[in-house]
Amino acid sequence: MFVERESVCVLGGGSTKYGKLDDSISDITLQASVGAIESAGIEPKEIEAGYISNVFGVADKQVHLGPVVMSNLGISECPSLSIESACGSGSVSFREAFANVAAGFYDAVLVTGTEKVTHTGTDWTTTYFSYCSDFFYEGQAGASFPGLFASMARAYLHEFDATEEDLASVAVKNHENGVLNPKAHLRKKISIDDVMDSAVVASPLKLYDCCPFSDGASSVILCNEKFAKEHSKDYVKVIGSGRGGSPAALQGREQLTTIPSTRIAAEAAYKMAGITAKDVDFAEVHDCFTVAEVVDSEDLGFFEKGTGATAARNGDTKLNGSISINPSGGLKSKGHPIGATGVGQVVEAFEQLTGKSGERTVNDAKIGLTQNFGATGASCAVHIFESV
Amino acid sequence: MFVERESVCVLGGGSTKYGKLDDSISDITLQASVGAIESAGIEPKEIEAGYISNVFGVADKQVHLGPVVMSNLGISECPSLSIESACGSGSVSFREAFANVAAGFYDAVLVTGTEKVTHTGTDWTTTYFSYCSDFFYEGQAGASFPGLFASMARAYLHEFDATEEDLASVAVKNHENGVLNPKAHLRKKISIDDVMDSAVVASPLKLYDCCPFSDGASSVILCNEKFAKEHSKDYVKVIGSGRGGSPAALQGREQLTTIPSTRIAAEAAYKMAGITAKDVDFAEVHDCFTVAEVVDSEDLGFFEKGTGATAARNGDTKLNGSISINPSGGLKSKGHPIGATGVGQVVEAFEQLTGKSGERTVNDAKIGLTQNFGATGASCAVHIFESV
Repeated sequence: MFVERESVCVLGGGSTKYGKLDDSISDITLQASVGAIESAGIEPKEIEAGYISNVFGVADKQVHLGPVVMSNLGISECPSLSIESACGSGSVSFREAFANVAAGFYDAVLVTGTEKVTHTGTDWTTTYFSYCSDFFYEGQAGASFPGLFASMARAYLHEFDATEEDLASVAVKNHENGVLNPKAHLRKKISIDDVMDSAVVASPLKLYDCCPFSDGASSVILCNEKFAKEHSKDYVKVIGSGRGGSPAALQGREQLTTIPSTRIAAEAAYKMAGITAKDVDFAEVHDCFTVAEVVDSEDLGFFEKGTGATAARNGDTKLNGSISINPSGGLKSKGHPIGATGVGQVVEAFEQLTGKSGERTVNDAKIGLTQNFGATGASCAVHIFESV
Repeated sequence: MFVERESVCVLGGGSTKYGKLDDSISDITLQASVGAIESAGIEPKEIEAGYISNVFGVADKQVHLGPVVMSNLGISECPSLSIESACGSGSVSFREAFANVAAGFYDAVLVTGTEKVTHTGTDWTTTYFSYCSDFFYEGQAGASFPGLFASMARAYLHEFDATEEDLASVAVKNHENGVLNPKAHLRKKISIDDVMDSAVVASPLKLYDCCPFSDGASSVILCNEKFAKEHSKDYVKVIGSGRGGSPAALQGREQLTTIPSTRIAAEAAYKMAGITAKDVDFAEVHDCFTVAEVVDSEDLGFFEKGTGATAARNGDTKLNGSISINPSGGLKSKGHPIGATGVGQVVEAFEQLTGKSGERTVNDAKIGLTQNFGATGASCAVHIFESV
């Protein structure tokens, strides 16, 4: 049976600063939500459902965040829920909201991603984050995420024409962009030498190849186009959405230099949007480690397999390069509050496509893409946005 | 714009036993999922998305459960996610799956709720469960859930013609039903005196007024009707779905003897189904404490406000009473693995309406309802099922 769907739009976006925050998880979630509501020019009571994404609410002793946020917004009657898909939670929450608006269940919904972990310290965070791996095969065997991504990096350097300096160039580029982003966690220009000289975390990955642990919250208002037109001229259309999965443990994969879930999600999103990778002007991708951005850039179809590192080395992915990757600074510089990251990428796409991204603006951008995965890419969602 | 929707069906259901389980959270989640798949007579590869509900994956060190389950089912490419809405997680996950199938995004999906906490001990569980309250106003002030529901019970006994013995009769009835349920946690007949003589947990609630902490997993296959017809004659239709919210903290409510989210969710579900409470043959409701079932039975429209306790006293809610409430044994006797409970209710509805519920069968049942809430009802979802 043919199901006719609503055209879905992003009407507004808000974020806290990413970094080490003092406020509670409830407070930062509220702050980002209020930011999105004000950006959209709507009243809280126009929101018909709340989609929260969060992984470790236990860290700040607040699980079941949805009703707390709705109550604090003065709309306690509004249904809400929390979605978790490890570091890919934000994009999956966005996808569920998209599906519900597309299906006409709601006219307008709130999507807020949030995480508060830095107060727990590095030991707690590293340990708990490892619960997002396939713990039986990975976490309990001592394989934390830096180690798992180091395996991917080692494989990449072995298989292709790539050097550790090429990976470092990803970090350098993302820090360059992050300096221009007032909300970014690490606003500091760095050099290839800085990366190469930083402490080895899990060879070949060094400290500056790794994104930081961050607190932060990001929020968007999603609605149908009729609702959007009635409220603002500053909205963008969601033209593509795709999700995919990979074997949860790295040992179950045929190759370490590609992430199956990204390819599946991207194929679905491009198909829905009716475009190819060539049509994308900028992309916010999941660069939890430098090697991840290189692999992403290939899996998303921007570069041929094995040439992503060369492209990074040559500056093709810089702001206003042939494809601008992570104009926000990405997870590496902007920061990675894991439940918020996927929603923060959408905020960046919204701001880029509505002329709100200041000095880090991608010139003449019409189409942006976001890619956000969980763990080593066991889950992934890709979304595509178009300016109106 | 009118959006035509698919008719959504439950094609199969499976559950582990509820109780104290030795297997890991990944294993029990897989066991229930396989049970549902076999019950539906489908192959894993026919599943297009996995909806997991779980609250405290951290208790057994496995968060990001979806990809692990999908990988263990041999369908790692299949997208998945986890949904949390405290003790109401299962029904909310079911609702998201329902919405996606209704909208035509997927033909068939897996919905599996799961929880594994008993190995952590009562202190851990009581503390972590309190994170599901509005922790700022409740949990950190020492208000754990028995205390919060005791406030509701105290208010109910004060306002209406009801006694502690009436509340006890809910426990007695649910244990009667649970004895007939091979999957139930507490299969033991009890008397009013047993309840009245049990240890006071939070006056007026005594130990036997409270549901147990349980491990367990429950799973269903949701699909469109074309898919259902092609696979089996044993399916039921989902004819109503509603969600609602309440002020997160009890102190924000105007009354303690009604749960706003239940009323909102029920109104929406009845409206979608085109029926009233009078048409319902049995209901699986959220009886985390005996008082909750009494309040639920009024909020769902089965009895006038203030008469639910009398109805329980008079046996109206017994198996094959005027309205059979919790034929499975409910949370009180069947058990309450918090992420699984809402899905387990749907398994019961499926089994009741397809002639698979053995000795606890509600005679000539055509329409069943499930109601599952989070915390003190800060979130709630109601679903209505019809036999074919």
